[in-house]
Amino acid sequence: MAVTVAAGVAPAEESPAVWLDRVGERCLAEAHDFVTARAAEHLSGHREGALAETVIPEFVAGGKCLRPMFAHVGWCCGRPESDAALRAASSLELLHCFALAQDDVMDGSSVRRRRPALHVRFARWHAEQGWSGSATRFGESAATLFGDLFLVWSEQLLRESGLDPETLARGWPVYDLMRAELAVGQLGDLVNDARSLPSWDGLLDVLRRKSGNYTVRRPLEFGAALAGCGPAVLAGLAEYGGLLGEAFQFRDDLLGVFGDPAITGKPAGQDLRDRKASSVIVLAATMTDRGQRTELTNLIELTTVDDAAVSRWRELIVATGARERLGELIRERAEKALAVIDPAVVPRHAAEVLAVLAARCTERDQ
Amino acid sequence: MAVTVAAGVAPAEESPAVWLDRVGERCLAEAHDFVTARAAEHLSGHREGALAETVIPEFVAGGKCLRPMFAHVGWCCGRPESDAALRAASSLELLHCFALAQDDVMDGSSVRRRRPALHVRFARWHAEQGWSGSATRFGESAATLFGDLFLVWSEQLLRESGLDPETLARGWPVYDLMRAELAVGQLGDLVNDARSLPSWDGLLDVLRRKSGNYTVRRPLEFGAALAGCGPAVLAGLAEYGGLLGEAFQFRDDLLGVFGDPAITGKPAGQDLRDRKASSVIVLAATMTDRGQRTELTNLIELTTVDDAAVSRWRELIVATGARERLGELIRERAEKALAVIDPAVVPRHAAEVLAVLAARCTERDQ
Repeated sequence: MAVTVAAGVAPAEESPAVWLDRVGERCLAEAHDFVTARAAEHLSGHREGALAETVIPEFVAGGKCLRPMFAHVGWCCGRPESDAALRAASSLELLHCFALAQDDVMDGSSVRRRRPALHVRFARWHAEQGWSGSATRFGESAATLFGDLFLVWSEQLLRESGLDPETLARGWPVYDLMRAELAVGQLGDLVNDARSLPSWDGLLDVLRRKSGNYTVRRPLEFGAALAGCGPAVLAGLAEYGGLLGEAFQFRDDLLGVFGDPAITGKPAGQDLRDRKASSVIVLAATMTDRGQRTELTNLIELTTVDDAAVSRWRELIVATGARERLGELIRERAEKALAVIDPAVVPRHAAEVLAVLAARCTERDQ
Repeated sequence: MAVTVAAGVAPAEESPAVWLDRVGERCLAEAHDFVTARAAEHLSGHREGALAETVIPEFVAGGKCLRPMFAHVGWCCGRPESDAALRAASSLELLHCFALAQDDVMDGSSVRRRRPALHVRFARWHAEQGWSGSATRFGESAATLFGDLFLVWSEQLLRESGLDPETLARGWPVYDLMRAELAVGQLGDLVNDARSLPSWDGLLDVLRRKSGNYTVRRPLEFGAALAGCGPAVLAGLAEYGGLLGEAFQFRDDLLGVFGDPAITGKPAGQDLRDRKASSVIVLAATMTDRGQRTELTNLIELTTVDDAAVSRWRELIVATGARERLGELIRERAEKALAVIDPAVVPRHAAEVLAVLAARCTERDQ
């Protein structure tokens, strides 16, 4: 994957959507090339390296670079585009790879980016070698270790991005906060999963810390902090990011229940099968009438959620009005997010791109 | 744990051993205080945080700070002691905490630093809450996440140590190499465990990459690189570190088979019970005669190693001469390590401390 598009200010005729796609492609190329070089440096010549040298860059190449896009838009609120800034933004894609690799182990998710999850691929490889010991355990350990490497490589790509130390110094506090929130948020998720059902407020708290902040707000703040944006810009981006991050996660949760497997690449009703206490479930629980309450309790108590149970779950959620209501909450938040972007402080091009991103995050099918 | 000892050049009357203990105590205090502050910052107020705010700093406090000691001696080969340099060295203790937390999950080790391993403590806590879901899985996930945080915090402590960017820039390449080698080495270990028995050369390769480099050589190189030492000093430390690192691991492997549980804090013959293909086992396999070969095959094929099997294993290893031979290899490597320290290029005080460290690494009982 070669970097083929030149940096620079977007030409006047380029639409915000086209500009965004170009940024995403370049960030993906940066992340992919960095990981390919690191994998060759550390893994080639080792027996266990042969597989990883293929699988690990492939895994990176499957990303959508949403977080780098937000980071780069944040940067563009204060400074002109540059290769170094794009590389710095790309580091967030590797941070995301870290989270995906390890979360899939913890959540027991077997599919990621339309392929078997990393731990599944490494487990299969172990089994194919005919070795003794648990292939499952090996797969989980290998995926965790490559997650660690993604975490290291993310920070290394940022540090080696070409931004000078003074510029980098403005970004580290947000970057460190993002990494800590990600781990602490995942811990909160595990605790939430372990309880029967969290309250709506408890769920929103974890959701904000984990997905909301991590997907939109912190990447924007990170880019803007690197660019040295002032408090007015930072405050606007933070508010936009908080609102849109929640909308993004609500949309994700709707797709986890109602998404089309042919489009999402995941089994139908995956979150239901995983018995995940997601926003749509928790909202449905708060909206049940007395009759629905019994059905809800029955469904929650199921230890295995099969196709029939997925259908019952979906019918119940629709009947409570939670699907409809969550759609409204998504639209409300996206609208509010756009309304807080003050054209007096955010550059016009950046504001246009933020509008495109808001639509993409809330109307997506995958 | 407060930092009570002032920095500065060691007073003339202080022995190298006393100086080393003082360095270790200060590094432990730095690492402990940093983690305590981060845990309070990110975890307080959250349900899952209450336990972690106690357990995580406690875990750090149990360390021996061997790697920070080596790093600080490396630094002292080129520059005078300073608070900033000690903090930078302390970052390696948090890197070690990362490795221990996650390795114990992967290896299924239940005891660490005379206490239940982190994943065991978190699993017990989960069970005590009476929640649904697997307590074991929760414990493993939580320990992995705190491992991630240790990895992040190590880098953060280094970056915020107070060393200026130019000084830090000299250390990053070794630091990055160390982190990558650690993960790749653990992966190699898992592959080695999965095979029946590796060759002696195959074992030495993993051992060098994982324990050998990581415990002695890279920490020394890291400190010396930060201090801007020249190629003659770096080459001497690298050779000393490679040799002593191997000796350290051989000693570790002897303790894993023959160590006194009352002193090591681990069950007798732990490595045998874990069916770990350690140096003492692999060496014994290369030294068996025809009669011993059958007994070895029988022992390797055991799926559970009980007290009686531990005794049989130990007798066989002693009978092959492998225990004795490994002791000789340890002494040879420690002697060679000291011989490569050239008094013309390494400061006298540092050379004396390296001699104390060589003795501690190879004669230790725990």
